[in-house]
Amino acid sequence: MAELEAATAVKPTGDDRYEAVLDPHWRIGTKPNGGYLLAVLARAAVDAAGPEHQHPAAVSAHYLAAPGPGPAEVEVEVLRRGRSAAQLRATLHAGGARTVEALVTCGQLPPAGGTPYWTGVEPPDLPAEEACFPVPADDPRFPVPLFSEIALRVDPASAGFAVGRPAGKGEIRGWVRVSPAPPDPYALLVAVDCLPPATFDLGLAGSWVPTLELTAYLRALPASGPLRVRQRARLVAHDRVDEECDVWDSTGALVATGHQLAAVRLPSRED
Amino acid sequence: MAELEAATAVKPTGDDRYEAVLDPHWRIGTKPNGGYLLAVLARAAVDAAGPEHQHPAAVSAHYLAAPGPGPAEVEVEVLRRGRSAAQLRATLHAGGARTVEALVTCGQLPPAGGTPYWTGVEPPDLPAEEACFPVPADDPRFPVPLFSEIALRVDPASAGFAVGRPAGKGEIRGWVRVSPAPPDPYALLVAVDCLPPATFDLGLAGSWVPTLELTAYLRALPASGPLRVRQRARLVAHDRVDEECDVWDSTGALVATGHQLAAVRLPSRED
Repeated sequence: MAELEAATAVKPTGDDRYEAVLDPHWRIGTKPNGGYLLAVLARAAVDAAGPEHQHPAAVSAHYLAAPGPGPAEVEVEVLRRGRSAAQLRATLHAGGARTVEALVTCGQLPPAGGTPYWTGVEPPDLPAEEACFPVPADDPRFPVPLFSEIALRVDPASAGFAVGRPAGKGEIRGWVRVSPAPPDPYALLVAVDCLPPATFDLGLAGSWVPTLELTAYLRALPASGPLRVRQRARLVAHDRVDEECDVWDSTGALVATGHQLAAVRLPSRED
Repeated sequence: MAELEAATAVKPTGDDRYEAVLDPHWRIGTKPNGGYLLAVLARAAVDAAGPEHQHPAAVSAHYLAAPGPGPAEVEVEVLRRGRSAAQLRATLHAGGARTVEALVTCGQLPPAGGTPYWTGVEPPDLPAEEACFPVPADDPRFPVPLFSEIALRVDPASAGFAVGRPAGKGEIRGWVRVSPAPPDPYALLVAVDCLPPATFDLGLAGSWVPTLELTAYLRALPASGPLRVRQRARLVAHDRVDEECDVWDSTGALVATGHQLAAVRLPSRED
């Protein structure tokens, strides 16, 4: 088992560059998962930010090309180093090409267990983890090695897509454990992009949805235990979908939110 | 009246650099509005992208420092130029400092008037424009010259903050006209960041909320007429708020969505 910390390790080689190895275990189909790539980029950015800015707080990535697994390089530039935040740019080079570029605002995340001032986003009720549907890694139609690294259990009420009966709500939710260790900010970056596309729940399960842009906001360090994750489609139109993904820790605190714009192939009944 | 097109004009000076003048009319207090800065950056990126990628489709900006009005320079780098999309980086230099850096995915937006495949985000019912509350530009407590350029009329049900009676829902909505001309993609970039902070509706009207990160997805060209805009707070915790802002055109089509993470000063009753 290639755990997330090892799979996202970066090694400084001087001159604001880092060596990385994109781990083949963290793939969806043939390509490393987008949230996993975000974690690799954020790890290099946090290293370059220095000890006063220990965590990624806001990460925005534009995906230029999907790299394969194997050796890669992260190029980092410090844009600004302030008192409460540092902003950096991190670029992933792999296979001779620039593949992902991200802007990363780093800071110090509050510890787990605080009470929010106000929230407009309540965690969904989910059946117990054991009563949810474990997503296999070795579906012969579309192998997802990622699901050997991440334990994802989908709420049966939003898993109908797997048997051709989508609920039509554009929502998939479930429990996520990213590794045997307690979750950390890098696990949250993976969590915001590890559920099946919410469009699967709209009868579009045959169509993969490559991410064009993904932004994650991390709001606190997560408590130990499984993460509760909900991915929702917002608008599906003109071969694009935007999705929001909320992640709560085991205490029910909203610890991360992702937004992504992705490409989707729609049946021709659209205008 | 400095219209948006003139106020966001950029002039190429060669070597992927553009001159701009940050217009004093588009200020909130003493600083140019964040959505306005996004529009300046996107205009330079679209110019550099070339004629096949005419519109900004996804723009993510990290705000390093708030520039004042006056001369500025946009530095653009083409990251990738593909068939259906081009990705660029645009950096705003002003007052001798790097102030905003953005990643911009450009493409061709669909025309106004299409029907979406599916939507999970319905437009809010709003009173007629005339029945909504026009936001003044010259409030002596906090002048907002921006509101001489943008006609913003807030739904009275979400305008209670102005008289010390916030509704407590973390939501502000209203009608927006960005200029006398029909709205375009740059008007949408302004629209996703021109409402008062949704935290004003939570009794935090004394606290301004500087944007740390702002991502906008543009989904179609807007039809003529006023824009319907709704800004909602999602989580207010640990001196941060994330807000989502949806923009519908006059036909009721969702044409843009913004997400932002901003700083907010919270009363000490928080943990």
